[in-house]
Amino acid sequence: MINFECDYTEGAHPRILEALIKTNFEQTSGYGKDAYCEAAREKIKAVCETPDADVHFLVGGTQTNTTVLSALLRPYQGAISATEGHIATHETGAIEATGHKVLTLPCENGKITADEIEAYCAAHYASGTSEHTVQPGAVYLTFPTECGTIYTKAELAAIRRACDAYDLPLFLDGARLGYGLADPNCDLTLPELASLCDIFYIGGTKCGAFFGEAVVIRNAKYKKDFRYFIKRHGGMFAKGRLLGIQFGVLFEDGLYFDICRHAVEQALRIRKAFASRGVEFFGQSMTNQQFPILTEAQVNYFAADYLPEYWGPAADGKKIMRFCTSWATKDEAVDKLVADIAKMPV
Amino acid sequence: MINFECDYTEGAHPRILEALIKTNFEQTSGYGKDAYCEAAREKIKAVCETPDADVHFLVGGTQTNTTVLSALLRPYQGAISATEGHIATHETGAIEATGHKVLTLPCENGKITADEIEAYCAAHYASGTSEHTVQPGAVYLTFPTECGTIYTKAELAAIRRACDAYDLPLFLDGARLGYGLADPNCDLTLPELASLCDIFYIGGTKCGAFFGEAVVIRNAKYKKDFRYFIKRHGGMFAKGRLLGIQFGVLFEDGLYFDICRHAVEQALRIRKAFASRGVEFFGQSMTNQQFPILTEAQVNYFAADYLPEYWGPAADGKKIMRFCTSWATKDEAVDKLVADIAKMPV
Amino acid sequence: MINFECDYTEGAHPRILEALIKTNFEQTSGYGKDAYCEAAREKIKAVCETPDADVHFLVGGTQTNTTVLSALLRPYQGAISATEGHIATHETGAIEATGHKVLTLPCENGKITADEIEAYCAAHYASGTSEHTVQPGAVYLTFPTECGTIYTKAELAAIRRACDAYDLPLFLDGARLGYGLADPNCDLTLPELASLCDIFYIGGTKCGAFFGEAVVIRNAKYKKDFRYFIKRHGGMFAKGRLLGIQFGVLFEDGLYFDICRHAVEQALRIRKAFASRGVEFFGQSMTNQQFPILTEAQVNYFAADYLPEYWGPAADGKKIMRFCTSWATKDEAVDKLVADIAKMPV
Amino acid sequence: MINFECDYTEGAHPRILEALIKTNFEQTSGYGKDAYCEAAREKIKAVCETPDADVHFLVGGTQTNTTVLSALLRPYQGAISATEGHIATHETGAIEATGHKVLTLPCENGKITADEIEAYCAAHYASGTSEHTVQPGAVYLTFPTECGTIYTKAELAAIRRACDAYDLPLFLDGARLGYGLADPNCDLTLPELASLCDIFYIGGTKCGAFFGEAVVIRNAKYKKDFRYFIKRHGGMFAKGRLLGIQFGVLFEDGLYFDICRHAVEQALRIRKAFASRGVEFFGQSMTNQQFPILTEAQVNYFAADYLPEYWGPAADGKKIMRFCTSWATKDEAVDKLVADIAKMPV
Repeated sequence: MINFECDYTEGAHPRILEALIKTNFEQTSGYGKDAYCEAAREKIKAVCETPDADVHFLVGGTQTNTTVLSALLRPYQGAISATEGHIATHETGAIEATGHKVLTLPCENGKITADEIEAYCAAHYASGTSEHTVQPGAVYLTFPTECGTIYTKAELAAIRRACDAYDLPLFLDGARLGYGLADPNCDLTLPELASLCDIFYIGGTKCGAFFGEAVVIRNAKYKKDFRYFIKRHGGMFAKGRLLGIQFGVLFEDGLYFDICRHAVEQALRIRKAFASRGVEFFGQSMTNQQFPILTEAQVNYFAADYLPEYWGPAADGKKIMRFCTSWATKDEAVDKLVADIAKMPV
Repeated sequence: MINFECDYTEGAHPRILEALIKTNFEQTSGYGKDAYCEAAREKIKAVCETPDADVHFLVGGTQTNTTVLSALLRPYQGAISATEGHIATHETGAIEATGHKVLTLPCENGKITADEIEAYCAAHYASGTSEHTVQPGAVYLTFPTECGTIYTKAELAAIRRACDAYDLPLFLDGARLGYGLADPNCDLTLPELASLCDIFYIGGTKCGAFFGEAVVIRNAKYKKDFRYFIKRHGGMFAKGRLLGIQFGVLFEDGLYFDICRHAVEQALRIRKAFASRGVEFFGQSMTNQQFPILTEAQVNYFAADYLPEYWGPAADGKKIMRFCTSWATKDEAVDKLVADIAKMPV
Repeated sequence: MINFECDYTEGAHPRILEALIKTNFEQTSGYGKDAYCEAAREKIKAVCETPDADVHFLVGGTQTNTTVLSALLRPYQGAISATEGHIATHETGAIEATGHKVLTLPCENGKITADEIEAYCAAHYASGTSEHTVQPGAVYLTFPTECGTIYTKAELAAIRRACDAYDLPLFLDGARLGYGLADPNCDLTLPELASLCDIFYIGGTKCGAFFGEAVVIRNAKYKKDFRYFIKRHGGMFAKGRLLGIQFGVLFEDGLYFDICRHAVEQALRIRKAFASRGVEFFGQSMTNQQFPILTEAQVNYFAADYLPEYWGPAADGKKIMRFCTSWATKDEAVDKLVADIAKMPV
Repeated sequence: MINFECDYTEGAHPRILEALIKTNFEQTSGYGKDAYCEAAREKIKAVCETPDADVHFLVGGTQTNTTVLSALLRPYQGAISATEGHIATHETGAIEATGHKVLTLPCENGKITADEIEAYCAAHYASGTSEHTVQPGAVYLTFPTECGTIYTKAELAAIRRACDAYDLPLFLDGARLGYGLADPNCDLTLPELASLCDIFYIGGTKCGAFFGEAVVIRNAKYKKDFRYFIKRHGGMFAKGRLLGIQFGVLFEDGLYFDICRHAVEQALRIRKAFASRGVEFFGQSMTNQQFPILTEAQVNYFAADYLPEYWGPAADGKKIMRFCTSWATKDEAVDKLVADIAKMPV
């Protein structure tokens, strides 16, 4: 059985394991104040070309989203998100648990637009009773989105301008950032992306690490007392160096980018195989998640040897299935899948 | 420089590292639904003699305390804790962040008593305006306490009865549970301790794991929907198996108990060495944390080669210092410290 | 200028004022423990035919919604509401402020249906990752709805069955309850309505009182410690008797029903006048709020002498306007409006 | 039976009732945007000599404390308060409900000192792990305190300096402000008091109104979006003009000060009567609350004709009783009590 369910089915990249073995009996202080964290922060600032940024390491995505939004928003404000955004759908109300509403905008192909954001804010402030409704206080984007698509440089720049017009910080959830940057159509570099955001994070959990998300705070306004937020949300990791060690390895010699590119290449082989059989897709992902729309018979055909994820219903009784690759996906696994796609029933 | 600052200065026990290496490329589902977690749950239920308990794995202590208390308390209730309890002092208001007040009772030697709990509850309900004050809704204990002491079987049983009298769940924070059970004066077995609590956790982070806390829910009343609480608090660990693998190793062949006993033996060697030089202690810890009260000169003497933690001021300008051992503390490190204590200035 | 903006433009019904004058120098205990509150509770239980209910008095609607939902929901649960429901749109995130997501269902004519509720719950529990999303924990209805419509007996009974199927309490926001019951097509009596809800409230603020909402808790499960919730939400009114006195008057000799019927009669005169000029309406309200869709010229025509509320845009550049009557609306004011409608430009 | 239980046993001052009667059928917009509120705001700014302040009207004290502190504090911050402060003891955790810890300082005679505040803040920032504890974010004082005492000009100025040293807003809870200013030893004028606070409120509920608290925001930093906070906390009163009308009357011709002075004069007559019989007092209140310490026999003696409030136990089996006067206390009631004190058993 080959598991394509998600991008966290394996452990960590072997170079990370090696680093953990090598450092295991060193003694360091806790809570991210060690030299490994410091070195990883420097590498991340260098690769993002954000020398003045603050970098913090957290354990997982929901924790990171909650902590960051809690720091960005005033109590009566909410975060603008796509209806399908992770904070709007898959975090058991963790954002609401900190008192904030998620303000959802309809999305196409997973993305929201600068125009939608501006229209939403304009309508809020035009109302004679603005204070009876939640004030938009930040914009939350995922890159890539829940359906694997990415924002172009022009789209992100337009959203940046909309944010500036309404004094909204722009927060980009990069749980799969590496896979987004590896999209062959991506016209954004990491420094360009960084320069357009106030705060964003670089996902480790889904991109080669055992766990970990690196939050980059570019806008000085949001740096103050961020460690208090981390601790208050239960995210102050005792053996903080484990995060530093992992990110240190990922950002050594471009490893992060290499392994993410590998994952996307494998995903696009799967995409091509399905497309050549006339299969249609949900969304237009060119990243590591592929969403072919399959018949019941096809779903059953693959169930024998593969574990994709059921994503939702489609027209005509068909099903959207998610095939997810990762840094750990083996070429041979994809070779076999591609061969089986070629033989699947139509 | 030898670090005695805390019990999370190193990585993980070598057998844990081996298990992570061995399983690294296996594919499993996420979020704790894998076979490693399942096996670890069974081991923990067996060792606690709680066959009907639910066991959940979380990443760290503050996260666990918040998640558990959020599940135990109604919104208008608070948790009774020692004034020095971890939730009252060292979690940046994480409990308050979920809307609950910590109701503190003065403690002696780190411990609160059944009588204090009963008196507090009696006073609450005797008031004509009970509903103007926070209702006591749970009792929170640490074992060992912040100053390294432990509750006796009789003390814990009395607290259990006080809880029953006021319908309060008893929650025991066992971030250092193994070290408490290794106290030579401990008259509680793990099954006995488990039988007296509604819910407790077995700390991994400070006791041999890279990270992880195992929550044991004995009282069926609190089992329902606990995974929702975990996710809502950002504690649903994506690669859940890492927690299962670690706890599986710790509870194989009694490893957890062996390594904790080792730590306590080393700590008691340090205690004996200080005591033999006439040093007095803060509290009466017989566990892995020792709190000698040292003169400025003595503090400076040790600063050359050792890193203890400054704990607070004592009388006559002296300082309470914490020397903390762990599963990873080397015999030679303690040999050297003991030898240096013998030569310390008086 | 005649104000039809809302139903709280005047003070209180004269009989309420008289009662306040008469009792002004009596001395009573605070916080709703006085004889006036007790008498009002008995009257409300009698008129609702809920002898075993608990009745509590709060000051305003948002406060009441927040307090009640906080008592009904577990932390990881949300309240199902129409997209246009008051808690979803006009309370500045007060529900989210207590940690709960509002789970919105699309509504037609302001109403949600039993089928929608069942489908939503079924989908939640069918998911393999239910615990990653907010669990539906209560159903919130407004009666009448935001657009003035009401649920029929059959619709409400069906929703009750859906609630039972998923163990959801049914909470009915009756800020304008009297106006709903006065809808000429209403086939529900107050006791019938009460028997279908777990908890509901009878609005005073918009129906003749200076202020006040009477919460009726029919389901014993939700009675416990409700006064703690009130106090915690800042709703424990010091001079509680003011609420008891007001509700005592409203439920003496059917005053509440009489004055609400008056308001609806006036509103239907306005409706008829607009309809006879060929004006269309937003929604199909037969209660005290009427939403004619007017041209810009018509809006300007009325602006000279009347103050309706702008409700939102309609097709073809038209505007939805709200004309709201109340217990205090004078016949002559409506006479004049009706006459002016007859002369309005087409 | 004469009730001295509290200062909210009667309705409202007759001039307030008259104003409500007179305006009852006027039509105004809701939510505090009417001319009565505007006029009351101007009067309050004039009497406080704070022409640039913002003034908002809320309904009650707990609601006001929660709303204000929610606006002053960042999520990881807490409010410094006396151990006996209202927010620390009598609000069912309403502050914690908004996520904030109350940081208590021991108080003498109800008051905390500038030195204590500075020492607390200094200790917080001196710690190497400040971010593991709640950051002090505001200072909360009551004037008069829970035991009826007041701060002197020098004490308040010193606290102001301590606040400035640590960038803490100073918030003064004036639920009984008028009674404090009427203390014969008070050396502060209202403008002086206002000039030392960032934000404070003038209590109406206990000082002549049916209900209402007037929040004065002097520091421009805290003015922004305050109405969102009010609405989010359920405090946006629909018929806002009722608050404006009441405060308009209270601040016409010095009524507020006159009626509060009356209450204090009556209280001091009671104090003098008890003192002349050798009775001792809890605290040193010279305001409208008096706390004689009585024997069981004395308590029973008064129970026949009077309703004071039991405040707590004192030494030797005695009891602290609270006798509270108000704007509504009749001279004859105090005449009778004074006469009975003269005859009480010793």
